[in-house]
Amino acid sequence: MPSDREVTGALSRIRLAAFDVDGVFTDGRFLLCSDGRDAVSFDTRDGLGVRMLLDEGISVALVTGRVSDAVRLRAERLRIPHLVRGSGDKRSDLLGIAEKEGIQPAEILFMGDDLPDLPAFSVAGVSVTVPEAPPELKSAADLITERSGGRGAVREVAELVLRAQQRYDSVFRRLAGQPE
Amino acid sequence: MPSDREVTGALSRIRLAAFDVDGVFTDGRFLLCSDGRDAVSFDTRDGLGVRMLLDEGISVALVTGRVSDAVRLRAERLRIPHLVRGSGDKRSDLLGIAEKEGIQPAEILFMGDDLPDLPAFSVAGVSVTVPEAPPELKSAADLITERSGGRGAVREVAELVLRAQQRYDSVFRRLAGQPE
Amino acid sequence: MPSDREVTGALSRIRLAAFDVDGVFTDGRFLLCSDGRDAVSFDTRDGLGVRMLLDEGISVALVTGRVSDAVRLRAERLRIPHLVRGSGDKRSDLLGIAEKEGIQPAEILFMGDDLPDLPAFSVAGVSVTVPEAPPELKSAADLITERSGGRGAVREVAELVLRAQQRYDSVFRRLAGQPE
Amino acid sequence: MPSDREVTGALSRIRLAAFDVDGVFTDGRFLLCSDGRDAVSFDTRDGLGVRMLLDEGISVALVTGRVSDAVRLRAERLRIPHLVRGSGDKRSDLLGIAEKEGIQPAEILFMGDDLPDLPAFSVAGVSVTVPEAPPELKSAADLITERSGGRGAVREVAELVLRAQQRYDSVFRRLAGQPE
Repeated sequence: MPSDREVTGALSRIRLAAFDVDGVFTDGRFLLCSDGRDAVSFDTRDGLGVRMLLDEGISVALVTGRVSDAVRLRAERLRIPHLVRGSGDKRSDLLGIAEKEGIQPAEILFMGDDLPDLPAFSVAGVSVTVPEAPPELKSAADLITERSGGRGAVREVAELVLRAQQRYDSVFRRLAGQPE
Repeated sequence: MPSDREVTGALSRIRLAAFDVDGVFTDGRFLLCSDGRDAVSFDTRDGLGVRMLLDEGISVALVTGRVSDAVRLRAERLRIPHLVRGSGDKRSDLLGIAEKEGIQPAEILFMGDDLPDLPAFSVAGVSVTVPEAPPELKSAADLITERSGGRGAVREVAELVLRAQQRYDSVFRRLAGQPE
Repeated sequence: MPSDREVTGALSRIRLAAFDVDGVFTDGRFLLCSDGRDAVSFDTRDGLGVRMLLDEGISVALVTGRVSDAVRLRAERLRIPHLVRGSGDKRSDLLGIAEKEGIQPAEILFMGDDLPDLPAFSVAGVSVTVPEAPPELKSAADLITERSGGRGAVREVAELVLRAQQRYDSVFRRLAGQPE
Repeated sequence: MPSDREVTGALSRIRLAAFDVDGVFTDGRFLLCSDGRDAVSFDTRDGLGVRMLLDEGISVALVTGRVSDAVRLRAERLRIPHLVRGSGDKRSDLLGIAEKEGIQPAEILFMGDDLPDLPAFSVAGVSVTVPEAPPELKSAADLITERSGGRGAVREVAELVLRAQQRYDSVFRRLAGQPE
């Protein structure tokens, strides 16, 4: 795992924060209803983290292997510009988004929690996982969050990116309604 | 943070208890269904706390940044007199409710769990947060509950207010069906 | 709190097991949907506990202050013979059920988790609460379960009743498909 | 309980992995909605475990005592070939599936968490339960997972089977997109 200093340096270059959904925005569980609908539990604190990133001009993407309209609706409400559902190859989907935005691989942060996320780790400038991920993910990641998936892990990453870019204080002041 | 004695003094003056919803009445999570509906998990123990306050003539308000019909329905069922949804400025919404009720800022308790709640902290007589709130909230609050948001934190606050006003024993006797 | 021996003696006489729902069959939380429906999370292990009691001829009742169709449906599926919803006086509702069944107060077990349950404690032969209940409930109860509400507390009580009546072994053998 | 070596030997012969649903794929809870629908919370990590097994030619079955369309839908989406709902005799349902597939009892793994699962334990080559199961299940099982039901216990079992059969590395490489 790289040193704190190296990670901070890499985080300071991030222009696209891309996330797997299940196990990252959630605790890995989803509800399946007897009429075929599904439902996903999201955390409002993560939502504020996404808003912080977008407000500061950092692009955000969701790349998920499942096809859930709940995820599509969450992306819409948070105005997340990139959503790939049913992804069978997260690495190439991630590179496709970056190319469309004119963003270099070193400027991508990717966060995932399970084996299909590993290929995307190898191309992203910063790869992040959660404490409950399999050991293979944790040994491959540049960063393991303190908070669990669905319990603030995305918010934690958003704050880390903004702090590394020395933009957290102004975000905080704006949200907390304090004069700059 | 003020002394216990100062907090008890401030709680004894409370006439309006106002609450953020996500992270306070809930654990921060909400369910998003694939058909666009959302659902929020509420605790019956918090509901009884709200009923205790209202029965004792203490006004109650919910002030939330999200727009959820689930929250509106919960407010209706608990007969909470004030509900502001989609609040972009909790401080001024809180002051608006207080003015309508003829209540002074020192008579307001406000409870919140995230950065957009901070501006309201600065005007309320007593500001309260939950143990899982960001450090900035915890250092600004007069009181941090022992119980987490969505797991009895609102009930705990209701009991603290009523105890500080020496009204908890009569509330208890009435609910527990014991002669006074 | 009575001695283990006294509790076992009292449990051996139980013919009606009556339960509050929220906080006993559940962890106190319920889901409120934006379209007005509600949903309650039940544990299959508690369901098996109810079935054990009914199979052994012990009557079962649910007495709840809320009005939820989810609770009504759960009672129907488990074939629970007595359901009182919207109860404003659990003590008298409990006595009404007992009278209809020709059961004496000493033959009633009542389990509840919050202040409105206390009046029913005073008439039941055995009163039970959960570890997370307010201190007033815990000091009034004859028995505090090890498992939390919604996480097997009802099943634990069902097993305690059946063991005190020396009927658990035959229930176990029947369910576990072993020759008697 | 058999030695690790014996369990590994038994796991290496498994050709059918059969699971109870409630308490194994879930934490034992299910949601009951006021309109009669139910919903079950599944873990995406367990879903990947099922996919690993099926991709490696190990058959999968769900055998559950409840009748839930949510379970039927989950089985369909994961392309699980065998589903028995409303099972009143898991032992004979399990043997029926094995016979249809031409699989010997010693080649069956069965995982369950409560008393009605015990009869199936006695016929399966490997019986597995979860740490929160009743003591009778835990003493009868060949294997107790480290992870709880609904929190990765099925995934853990899938990995154990594949490792015992020395197929996990190739599954991992395929999923993680690494050259073999």
